[in-house]
This record gives sequence, C-alpha cells and structure tokens, in this order.
Amino acid sequence: MAIAEIVSVGTELLLGEILDTNAQFLGSELAILGVDCYFRTTVGDNRERIKQTIATALNRSDVVITSGGLGPTADDLTTECMAAVFDVPLEFDEQMFKHIEQLFYSRGFKRMPESNRKQAFRPKGADWLDNPVGSAPGIIWRIEAKLLEAAGIADASRERYILTFPGVPSELKAMWQETAREFLEKTFVRSAIWTCELKHYGIGESALAEMYSALLEMSNPSVAPYAGNGECRLRVAAKAETREVAMQLAVTVVNEIKERSGIKCYGIDNDTLESVVGALLAGRGMTLAAAESCTGGLVSKRLTDIAGSSRYIKLNATTYANSAKHSLLGVPNQILENQGAVSPECARAMAEGVRRLAEADLGLSITGIAGPDGGTDDKPVGLVYLGLSTPEGYYAKRLNLGTTLSRSDIRHRTANEALNLVRVFLIEPDSLRQDRQ
Amino acid sequence: MAIAEIVSVGTELLLGEILDTNAQFLGSELAILGVDCYFRTTVGDNRERIKQTIATALNRSDVVITSGGLGPTADDLTTECMAAVFDVPLEFDEQMFKHIEQLFYSRGFKRMPESNRKQAFRPKGADWLDNPVGSAPGIIWRIEAKLLEAAGIADASRERYILTFPGVPSELKAMWQETAREFLEKTFVRSAIWTCELKHYGIGESALAEMYSALLEMSNPSVAPYAGNGECRLRVAAKAETREVAMQLAVTVVNEIKERSGIKCYGIDNDTLESVVGALLAGRGMTLAAAESCTGGLVSKRLTDIAGSSRYIKLNATTYANSAKHSLLGVPNQILENQGAVSPECARAMAEGVRRLAEADLGLSITGIAGPDGGTDDKPVGLVYLGLSTPEGYYAKRLNLGTTLSRSDIRHRTANEALNLVRVFLIEPDSLRQDRQ
Repeated sequence: MAIAEIVSVGTELLLGEILDTNAQFLGSELAILGVDCYFRTTVGDNRERIKQTIATALNRSDVVITSGGLGPTADDLTTECMAAVFDVPLEFDEQMFKHIEQLFYSRGFKRMPESNRKQAFRPKGADWLDNPVGSAPGIIWRIEAKLLEAAGIADASRERYILTFPGVPSELKAMWQETAREFLEKTFVRSAIWTCELKHYGIGESALAEMYSALLEMSNPSVAPYAGNGECRLRVAAKAETREVAMQLAVTVVNEIKERSGIKCYGIDNDTLESVVGALLAGRGMTLAAAESCTGGLVSKRLTDIAGSSRYIKLNATTYANSAKHSLLGVPNQILENQGAVSPECARAMAEGVRRLAEADLGLSITGIAGPDGGTDDKPVGLVYLGLSTPEGYYAKRLNLGTTLSRSDIRHRTANEALNLVRVFLIEPDSLRQDRQ
Repeated sequence: MAIAEIVSVGTELLLGEILDTNAQFLGSELAILGVDCYFRTTVGDNRERIKQTIATALNRSDVVITSGGLGPTADDLTTECMAAVFDVPLEFDEQMFKHIEQLFYSRGFKRMPESNRKQAFRPKGADWLDNPVGSAPGIIWRIEAKLLEAAGIADASRERYILTFPGVPSELKAMWQETAREFLEKTFVRSAIWTCELKHYGIGESALAEMYSALLEMSNPSVAPYAGNGECRLRVAAKAETREVAMQLAVTVVNEIKERSGIKCYGIDNDTLESVVGALLAGRGMTLAAAESCTGGLVSKRLTDIAGSSRYIKLNATTYANSAKHSLLGVPNQILENQGAVSPECARAMAEGVRRLAEADLGLSITGIAGPDGGTDDKPVGLVYLGLSTPEGYYAKRLNLGTTLSRSDIRHRTANEALNLVRVFLIEPDSLRQDRQ
C-alpha cells in the first residue's frame, strides 16, 4: 500500500496566523482512499528548508502532496524548490500562460499583473494539475528514477510522485475533487472508494460503538465512529474495482445501520438537524415558529441558514425579557410571577403563543439559563425547558446540561435538542408520548 | 535568537479527524516571544517514528515543543519515546501520583483507573510542567550534553530543551500561560513581551497598511496587520526587560493608532462588535430591538452571545414573511406591494415597528437577499437595506455585497454591518449624517 506525506508551505502557518485546514482535509481524504500518511510537515517560505523538506518526504514516501507557495509573489517558492531538488529546469508553457491571462480578462481585469507569468512555469517533465477555480495551477510530477538517484533519494527505482496545490482551501478542494483524487485512486489504490457518513443524534459515541461492535471489526466495508459537537457519526467506507461495486458493498451495511438506529440516525453526509427539519417541513407543507429565550435567536438563525427556508419559516421571536414574553406571546403574568420564566408552564405558554402569533402549524419554545450567571439552587445554569405546540397536542422536554459547559456550548446543545424535538415529532410522534401533555 | 520546533503527536491528526489548533496557538505564541520556528511536524502514535521525529527536531532546534501522547492509554507514547531517544530510564514520582489520584477523588471518582499511574513517570533528569486543569502533567527537560552526544545529536554542547504538553487544547493553553511561556521568556528571550491587538472595522487591510506604513517598519514595538472574517487587526508587540517596560514602550503606539483610526478601531484583543455594542448600550442604560429578515436571527444570536445581554435586549423578531412584517411590525401592505420587502421604505417601517413593539430605545432592521436564489436584475443577491430608528432620527444604510459571496458570508457580513451601524450611532452619530433621513 502506498505511503503519502503532506507538506504545508507558508510562513504564515508557522506563525499561527492561519489554521491549516488543508492538511486536515488532505489527511481525511487520504484515509478514505486507504493511502497511509505517517508524517506531515509544515515549512516556511525559505528555499533551503523547502528543498530539505521535499527531499526528506520523498525519502520516506511514494507521493508527496504540497499545499501553498504557488502564488505569483517572490515568496511563493514551491515550484522552483521542487525543480531545484532534482536540478531540473523550469519550462514556460505558452498555453497555460494564455489560460491564466484569459481568466483575468474574464474577471473584468484589463490586464494580468506581470508577476502572474510565474504561474505558467513548471518543472520539465511535470504535468499540470488544473485549477478549475483560481489562477494557480498545480502539478502532478512522476519523477524519473535517474533524477531520484542523482538527488540521493533512497530506493530510487520505486515510483515517486509529487502533487502540488495552492494554499487557498477552495482551490485545493476543487483540484482534489476534480483531478487528484481520481489520479491517486488509479495510481495507488487501483480501486475505487465509496463512503457514507451516517449522522446520529441522541446516542453517545461509546453506546454507538457498543451497538455496532461487530460492524466496527469489518474491513471492507469498514465502519468507524466519530464524535464531536454533541453528535456522533458512523463512517462506512467500501473499496472495490469500481465506485459502483464499492457502493453496492457498502449499501447493505448502510441500510442495516439506518434500520437499527431508526430515529437516532437523522441523516447522511452533509445533512444537519436544521436541514433535515427544513426538508420535513417543506415536504409536508407545514410551517414552524420559534420563541426563544436563552438561545437568543440561535434556533432561528440555524433554521434560516438553509436556503429556501422562507417556505416554512414566517416568523420567529426572541423574547428575552418577561415583558416581551407577556406582551408578544401572551404568557400570563401569573406564570411569570409564580413559576418564573424558566418553567414548564412558561415554555408551554410561549410555544402556544408563538404558534398563534405566527399562525404557524407548529410552535417551538426554548426557555432556560445559559449562564454563566443567573443560576440558583432550584434552577441551576444549564436547566432548559423546551416546548412544542402542535395540532396533535403539546410536547415538553426538560434538559439538565450541567454547570460545566460554557454559555456557548449550552446554547448550541439546547438548539440541537430543540431542532431534534421537532424532527422526532415530524417522523415518530408516538415516541414522544411520555413527553406529551 | 533561539529556534523552536513544534511536534504534534497523534494518529487522529494525520487522519484529519481533528484540526490541529494547538500548533496554531503555539506558533503564534512563539512569534510573540520572538522565538523562531522553522518546522512543524505531525507524527502518528508510532514508537519509531516519534523517536525519529524528536531526534530530527533536536538536531535543528534549541527547544522542541510537543503536544499530544501524554494520556493514560497504550497509544500515548510521547514520554517513553523521548526517554528512549536518550536511553534514559523513566522514573516514578510518588508525589505526582498522589496528586493525580487526588484529582480523581476531587472530581467525585471513587478510585483512579490503574492506567493513569503511567502519567506519574518522567524521564530521569526532567522536571514536571504542571497541568492546572487536567490529569496529564508535561515535562520541561534540559538535556545534558553527554546525552545529546551519545544520541548523535548535532552540536551537542548547545543547550537543548524538550517541553511536552497534552493534546487537550484547554490544558495545553493553561500550561503554556501559567508556566511554559515564562520559562521560555527567561531561558531564551531574556526579556518580556507585551502585545495588543487593535481591531478595526470599515477599513481594508491594504488601506490600513498604507495608513500605518511608517509604523509597520518599526521593530520594537512592532506593528503588523492581519485580516479575516471581514475585519482587520493591527497587532502591536513590544519587548523589554519587564512586561511593565514593554507595555510602556507599546502604549504610545497603541494610543497613536487608536487616535488616528478613530471610530474605525472598535476594540482590542477579545472585543467583538457585539460585545462593544453591548457595553455601550449597558453603559448608557439603553435598550435595542432588532427586526431581521435575511439574517434570520443571526444578529439576535450574536447580541445575546454576550453574558448579561438581558440588560439591553428585551425582544428581537425574525420577520421572514411579508405577513409577519405587516402583522407584527406594522409594515404597511402598500410598501410591501409597491416597493417590496427589500426596500429602504420597508427597512424604515421595520426599524420603527420593532422599536415600538419592544418599547426599546433603538430599533434595528435588516432586510435583503441572502441568496443563493431570490435575486433579480433590480434586486440582486447581496442587496441589503439596514435601518436604525432612534430618538434622534432615522438612519439608513444600503449594502451591495455582490453575487459571489455564499449565503453564509452574506449573512455574516450583513450582521457585522448592522452591529457596526449601532456602534457608530452610539459613539459618533454625526458621522452618520449622510445616512440620516
């Protein structure tokens, strides 16, 4: 199996001015391809150190993938350093030059800056790795054995490749997806990969791992659990001669997980709780209105992150003050005075109030204590009441998120729970029976 | 000047399962200290490769800083690999063991898992680097010349150090701030550093760099511009014998920038537009209400991100549908029909309506087209109208954010502009004269 090494070039990375999301992206893509990656090196914009890093990486891997240093300025050195390692000249490509020039015209520039000419040079013998989004192309370079030998690279008879990418994440991703992934698949994997992430809510990573312990031991398709942000994912990956066959291999397992996880599996790949809720509402022609207190607009923001959400969201309200809960949503002053704003009674009045106000099918309410202040012995930070008013009745939920989470985490998890309450109601209202009032 | 090298240990980093924010943090902290960093290496949980990486790093640097691999499990290998490089035994520290055990009791555990015993071992000759937050201590190890020589490290007579940190970001940060930074300052910098970031809004990076071109050429204090997320920062850093003297050196420049930038400098260090607006409102005992359309609750969410925001936020409304704009905020149907929801007239009616509804001092409105759909020739994606209704009159602003930004970016920048409109009104309302109606 092939070994790859990632080299990130840029002084701004070493200085911590930017976070290296490219290396993370490349790492996870290589893992999906099944290409091993043992080292990742970050080096600044310095000729000698870039050359040293490329040589070291080639010594211990089959393919070196670089990001950064392909721009037009004097400190963009990746291409020239690579050529220098093998003492190979840089060649000017008239056609690529015209292509880059054309790109500038098409973006409304009168002329291309002289410095961009630099981007049309590549080491003799290297192929272009096209950039569908920006001006900096990369290269795919299969390095001849005699060059490896002359440069003193170990095991010179083994095939060795260098792939270069610009540092702009959107360009790197596009180039990876359109060209590089397939190239690596063909060259090293000699097989195709199909993957699917099954997103779960309402079950922890260890419970998920226990539930699917037998599947986690399989190798093709492989199943692996990931956790983060209060959610868990199971990644199913299969390898076969073609993507089609790989998918067929994986799909049985995917379906098994979907079935066994049931309501706890809320979607796949790029689905989010808000996108799933949105699709369910849109599909049924229903509308939702939210009245938020401690989340302060976060649920409204997440629901409207989804393009087209105006089909099912007409009105949401952040009623932070008691006066707003009373005057806008009609929460009785008696409840606010006796039970308080953070109470099941207030949550119910808010949910019913916002549903009425917005003339929506569903009314969602969130009232709680996000902290860091405002908690008491009776009502500690992290106590939250959710309510959902529906044509079929009212559903309530109480959360105890504890006092160790940050304000931001309490708000985020509360929003997750609120969105999930709507989701579960839309799919399996019976499972909420015990929450029904 | 000393040279440092950062080594991140963990297979999960190479697989791209987590983003290496530790390396970014350490890089920026080293930059502030003025310690050079030429390489950063990430290596998996593998004995041979960790040893190789540590040896390589020591060969070319004065201090090697590792993160990760200090936990209690079998794949936490950093400490033992370090000892193995120099063929030095690991010593058990009874006192540290008791300290770690105590930590478990204090967190309500009945007993400490046996595996945590491992964390009380350190290479003979190394000092502990205390962890004020978690169970894994790090080490500070000044490696003796004879050990360096025996291990074949170049230039063995030069002082060489290894500092280890756990991979949990909050623990690494706390250990850095409480111990390691001062240790490095004393050992290598022989001086103290004081830094301040001046956050700007409403001016681009190149304009800022041009405006302060003379300052950018200074070396102590140094001034450097950074951009990101639609904002710009100027970082002022000074070096002197004591932090006190360094601050005195920097403060003249900080004050000069504050004065020349005026309203464009909105805060320092951890300030955000929403925290600054919040502090201004709280300080004056004023309240604000927001009516949002295209931002869908994002402004409300950001305003209430701030602890204590219930002092100045009583009620915000997301009026996504025309019907909600009309029924809740009293936007005349005539405006909605003739000028449309995305119009200066609608923005004004929304701002005045929400101010009235919430009985707030200020009413902020946002109506526009966040895309990707819904744009027309007349009203393209990225067209946004902001309104601010105040006791002193009405202020309006029109944004053209263009059609190339994503929905999320359009919403984020719109929220920035809306928060900034409130900020400028509260500080320098006269500068909004041309926007007043």
